[in-house]
Amino acid sequence: MKRILLASTSTVYGGTYLSYLQDELIDFFTGIDEILFVPYARPSGITHDEYTQIAQQFFNRVGKRIVGLHTFADPKKAIRQAKAIFTGGGNTFVLVNQLYGLEVMDVLREAVENGTLYMGTSAGSNIAGQTMQTTNDMPIVYPPSFKTLGLVPFNINPHYLDPDPKSKHKGETRETRIKEFHVFNDTPVIGLREGSWLRMEDEKVSLKGDLTARIFLKGQEPYESTEILL
Amino acid sequence: MKRILLASTSTVYGGTYLSYLQDELIDFFTGIDEILFVPYARPSGITHDEYTQIAQQFFNRVGKRIVGLHTFADPKKAIRQAKAIFTGGGNTFVLVNQLYGLEVMDVLREAVENGTLYMGTSAGSNIAGQTMQTTNDMPIVYPPSFKTLGLVPFNINPHYLDPDPKSKHKGETRETRIKEFHVFNDTPVIGLREGSWLRMEDEKVSLKGDLTARIFLKGQEPYESTEILL
Repeated sequence: MKRILLASTSTVYGGTYLSYLQDELIDFFTGIDEILFVPYARPSGITHDEYTQIAQQFFNRVGKRIVGLHTFADPKKAIRQAKAIFTGGGNTFVLVNQLYGLEVMDVLREAVENGTLYMGTSAGSNIAGQTMQTTNDMPIVYPPSFKTLGLVPFNINPHYLDPDPKSKHKGETRETRIKEFHVFNDTPVIGLREGSWLRMEDEKVSLKGDLTARIFLKGQEPYESTEILL
Repeated sequence: MKRILLASTSTVYGGTYLSYLQDELIDFFTGIDEILFVPYARPSGITHDEYTQIAQQFFNRVGKRIVGLHTFADPKKAIRQAKAIFTGGGNTFVLVNQLYGLEVMDVLREAVENGTLYMGTSAGSNIAGQTMQTTNDMPIVYPPSFKTLGLVPFNINPHYLDPDPKSKHKGETRETRIKEFHVFNDTPVIGLREGSWLRMEDEKVSLKGDLTARIFLKGQEPYESTEILL
């Protein structure tokens, strides 16, 4: 009875934090008063308090209280008692390192598998996958493992970007990077474009938003899809 | 008596593999007949043999023989006996993982510190820094450490890209990512644009090519520079 919402990005071009998701979040968090916020990805290195404030500012609009996981003396207990959890974006290495440091990766997985609502954006979506190995982030800290929550049977590449045919840059395209991932790994990868999100109810995953997703399966050419059938 | 050449990229827009560096490489490798090639970064997942062939094709033009490190039963001995080493680009995680797996990271460092010529492009340049933590690559394998050769007293960000003011993409810019690195780390970072390379003779590092480099120091605003004074 997993219930999960995974967004490519918190913010789309021209919008404010989470604004494009407002209707979906009202629906997803129906009956929930308080959301446990995981601020550990620290975008731009901001503090846990600052990040929690940003989340609270948005959720004020839809009448939800936000509590930061960092404010609890016993984070395991806080996760077990939460009815809904939201992990914000930022640096996936920093996020995963902190979750392992607090020894809450397993606790978080169990909570969501037992029905606690889980929402992620960007890095927070990435960690719902089998591993964090299709993150776009810089490895600015060294986590003890790249294994993540495994709530969905694939990996996510958030902020998926199509190759720019006019680019003069010779660094690898996102597609090249994900194909390289499949030289060494078997896990399917969903390239989730900004403005797209996944909603999982029990074991069914739906692609939401106006865009297709790019599906990467080992040994096959990637393709566009309006649904997630894996 | 270190002698090192570190290029941001192997190939610039409109050029062929290493062509823009040809004059510099003729000078750098004066007196050298044979170059030991480290093919482990495997761009696009190509084999070690395929990658060595690509390097050989270019070096045929300047009369150098290329031998792949993967062809030696004793890679430590091969590194110790080489007069010149070239590490090609690709995925830095794959490269570093393999260097640790073969236990040659220290051997490689010692060889270059003792005067073996070292050339790197992209991932091969990245590993000359203190750590690989300012790579742009995807963490498709899990290396035992992010620590690298430390041949230069800074980290390199190869393929450095300026923010695109017209972009509608909300993923982090390169500058944001490197600033996040400095929330957790002290090492200076050189943002090395495609078409730029560093040449180090003993302890003096020169910036070559037509472009400035972007210098990131912890706690300071990044700035442009025509020289590397750290």
